[in-house]
Amino acid sequence: MVEYVEKEVKKVDVWQFKKYACKVKPINIYTGKNIVVLNKAEAQEHDIYWGYRTELVHENIRFIAIVDVSDEIVKPGEIGIFKDIASIHKMEEGDTIEVIHMDQPESIKFIKKKLDKGALTRDEIYSIVKEIMQDRLSEIETSAWITAAYINGFTDDEVISLANATVDSGEKLDLGKHPIVDKHCIGGVAGNRTTMIIVPIIASAGLYMPKTSSRAITSSAGTADTMEVFADVTFNVDELRSMVLKTKGAIVWGGGMKLAPVDDKLIQIRHPLSLDPEGMLLASILGKKKSVGAEFAIIDIPVGRGVKVQYLERGNELAKHFLRVGEKLGIKLEALITDGAEPVGNGVGPGLECVDVLQVLNGQGPDDLRHKSLIMAGKLLELCGKAEKNSGYMIAQDIIKSGKAMAKFREIIEIQGGNPKVKESDIKIGQYSHTVNSDVAGSIFHIDNKTIAKIARIAGAPRDKGAGVLLHRVRGDRVEVGDKLFTIYAESEAMLDFSLKALKDLEPVEMRKMLLGEMK
Amino acid sequence: MVEYVEKEVKKVDVWQFKKYACKVKPINIYTGKNIVVLNKAEAQEHDIYWGYRTELVHENIRFIAIVDVSDEIVKPGEIGIFKDIASIHKMEEGDTIEVIHMDQPESIKFIKKKLDKGALTRDEIYSIVKEIMQDRLSEIETSAWITAAYINGFTDDEVISLANATVDSGEKLDLGKHPIVDKHCIGGVAGNRTTMIIVPIIASAGLYMPKTSSRAITSSAGTADTMEVFADVTFNVDELRSMVLKTKGAIVWGGGMKLAPVDDKLIQIRHPLSLDPEGMLLASILGKKKSVGAEFAIIDIPVGRGVKVQYLERGNELAKHFLRVGEKLGIKLEALITDGAEPVGNGVGPGLECVDVLQVLNGQGPDDLRHKSLIMAGKLLELCGKAEKNSGYMIAQDIIKSGKAMAKFREIIEIQGGNPKVKESDIKIGQYSHTVNSDVAGSIFHIDNKTIAKIARIAGAPRDKGAGVLLHRVRGDRVEVGDKLFTIYAESEAMLDFSLKALKDLEPVEMRKMLLGEMK
Repeated sequence: MVEYVEKEVKKVDVWQFKKYACKVKPINIYTGKNIVVLNKAEAQEHDIYWGYRTELVHENIRFIAIVDVSDEIVKPGEIGIFKDIASIHKMEEGDTIEVIHMDQPESIKFIKKKLDKGALTRDEIYSIVKEIMQDRLSEIETSAWITAAYINGFTDDEVISLANATVDSGEKLDLGKHPIVDKHCIGGVAGNRTTMIIVPIIASAGLYMPKTSSRAITSSAGTADTMEVFADVTFNVDELRSMVLKTKGAIVWGGGMKLAPVDDKLIQIRHPLSLDPEGMLLASILGKKKSVGAEFAIIDIPVGRGVKVQYLERGNELAKHFLRVGEKLGIKLEALITDGAEPVGNGVGPGLECVDVLQVLNGQGPDDLRHKSLIMAGKLLELCGKAEKNSGYMIAQDIIKSGKAMAKFREIIEIQGGNPKVKESDIKIGQYSHTVNSDVAGSIFHIDNKTIAKIARIAGAPRDKGAGVLLHRVRGDRVEVGDKLFTIYAESEAMLDFSLKALKDLEPVEMRKMLLGEMK
Repeated sequence: MVEYVEKEVKKVDVWQFKKYACKVKPINIYTGKNIVVLNKAEAQEHDIYWGYRTELVHENIRFIAIVDVSDEIVKPGEIGIFKDIASIHKMEEGDTIEVIHMDQPESIKFIKKKLDKGALTRDEIYSIVKEIMQDRLSEIETSAWITAAYINGFTDDEVISLANATVDSGEKLDLGKHPIVDKHCIGGVAGNRTTMIIVPIIASAGLYMPKTSSRAITSSAGTADTMEVFADVTFNVDELRSMVLKTKGAIVWGGGMKLAPVDDKLIQIRHPLSLDPEGMLLASILGKKKSVGAEFAIIDIPVGRGVKVQYLERGNELAKHFLRVGEKLGIKLEALITDGAEPVGNGVGPGLECVDVLQVLNGQGPDDLRHKSLIMAGKLLELCGKAEKNSGYMIAQDIIKSGKAMAKFREIIEIQGGNPKVKESDIKIGQYSHTVNSDVAGSIFHIDNKTIAKIARIAGAPRDKGAGVLLHRVRGDRVEVGDKLFTIYAESEAMLDFSLKALKDLEPVEMRKMLLGEMK
């Protein structure tokens, strides 16, 4: 056996010669993916089979789609176009489309490099991101990259490249004003609507806070879902800019704009396995901050049972990693490790959370939500020099006490198209409810974030804004038999019934039990 | 922050209460996947969205499908069923189907365990395989598992569990006769139709060889594609059994039967990234051998430029791994490291390869193909005690010389429904051809497997049985200007033209060049 210099086989787009034109035949189905239907025999003539990706050209726009085949619905000379693609690419019946056999995506070799523990260069990461955006990379391939990132990790340089590629994958908010501040919570805590309290405080203090938030994927509400009770949350980047130039603050749905769009695609793949490779998590969060021009930001890292970060040591490591990467990206960060073991606030579900928010902005409401919001707002004021060290909390508190935060919140509601005079009693809470009482006396040992969110979701949240769970007690409370623990709200009897059936197998509020296990 | 005992949140199928019935509406498209179309509003009522997987019940058969949604084609109360699913599950217009919201697959946590470098137990691997077979696991999730297997590796116990789970995922061939022998080549070499020579030799020697082969995925021909020139290759397990009981040997398409079906699903995911985690490769190959009851098998590991295993050391390691696992699975193996740097045989493409096979069985034909086939057949005879040490090659050669191998091959062709009197001149080779001559004098340094296969494929192979490349020279040959190097054959002028255009960017036959690079 001879050893030899391994030469790479020259990569050429040898299939470029196999292409053909066909006419659009609309198919009225949403697929959520870039899928087209080709005539089976005609596709085969061009060496294209189901499951392949193919390149399509329509009026000089090139895009990639996954191939389905049919031998009856789509005749030779036709291409079946589903509703999603037809609307994105503005295609109509009879339009001409050229079908080109697609060669293997270039970035496959960079994904393989990461699988083999290599560190990727800036250009290699940009190439992967570009091909994800073009739909050249399939879910299988993207999943392999994410898995490799999870197992083999990213260097700081890779995180920075990915954060920058994330920013460059979409539009950017250029406010032309300073300072721009932001916050982010890595999630997992039920309730926890601090954003809706912090933004008005910060904007009242004269800082710019163009806050983009997410909707729930499997939880009972994201900040965007909850804010939507008060006002619209779907805006484009220009609209966000013009609103924030007027009110200094806004709370909108991030998914509604074209900021950092590759991140949404990555999250769709990361979601089923709850895969959060640390490098990708950082690039995702900081890329989003950078895309709105943030110069200062607070990162909230909840720690505790059932949230992403379970131990304090892990929280500290993650915090350091954030600071290190933030500095290189030019964002001044402070990371706060917070108690994430239990829900924050009394309400879980959009409407119920809105009640908490209005109460806190009125100087009342749940202690934990108010306290956490003031800490975070205070730290943000200190971070960007608007408050002396250790004085931020008091300043934030004064902004609430003076009524300025509430006035600012109403201003934000108004500019986002809501009713600025909204009162607590205007918030519609589901008319079907069921209260669970304690059947034992003792102290509450744990209220489980995931279980509470699950019940709220089964009851209809976040789609039904009035659905959710209202907690009457917090951890540590002493309760007697018959004391109220929590109430489930739903907008229909059927949804309430679903949640009650589910409740039978769940234990959202745990009393202290001395016996944890038994072995014989 | 308190440290606490982490309890797993109780997993309950809380969605089981959300189910509804609807009527089948057939949609005449093949998707190649388990996709159904639900009415958008109705699905949303049940917390089901596009991209979700859902569980369906039809006449007491449960299966999983991926959800598409439509608001027009599928009305409330209907479910759109694509052609694939309708035929698999025998559904007709108006049949009732119950749609059940599906909870997260159980095996997600075992996949996560492998991501976190854990070794999986037998039950955990069986659970993953079961959920892949049920389509409960998505491509994203399966890709993560394969990627983790690639990076973190499998223990021998995991390989054995996966091999057994692979066998148990489908039917088994129970021949009731002994000894049963098999062979496998890990692939990558163009031409290389040893199987079609070895099976008749071995069957002539009185051993049972129920050989299942694959079709090409991206190459120019698999053994099943080539055998199909002579006879049918699609049979079920019962048919294979009854044929082999008569002829002792058969050469059929493995994908046509239900042997080790999980392997086909894994290969579909592994293919785009050419991901061959060693443990999975072994489990796949040995699982397939075990599913036909093989007691003895030869593993052909081609080594060289451009094939999977590039260095001899790697080939040796892989060979040892095969032997270790084979022993534990109860299959007596011999691994052969072979020269895989160049194509074996003169023809590449189904018809041209058949010509080589007939010539070798006639005692002539290309030296490399004959020699390699005799080595392998000889080793197989020695391995199972049918030949003394070092006498297998001669015995195999005698079986060819005596005409017994050819007679056996004709018997196999006949039982598989082909013409047993087939002659070389009956094999249709594409009537459109182009011969490439050398434009320099010198010696041939390398003939590239992948490039030759690519040209053959672009010319139409394996679909067009007469398409391919015929090599006139081998590595090391001295050629003069104008000497023939190779001829491309195609079944149409257009296909020949495609391949000639592609040829401009490719260098299938490399002459020796002294200057390999330059730096200034």
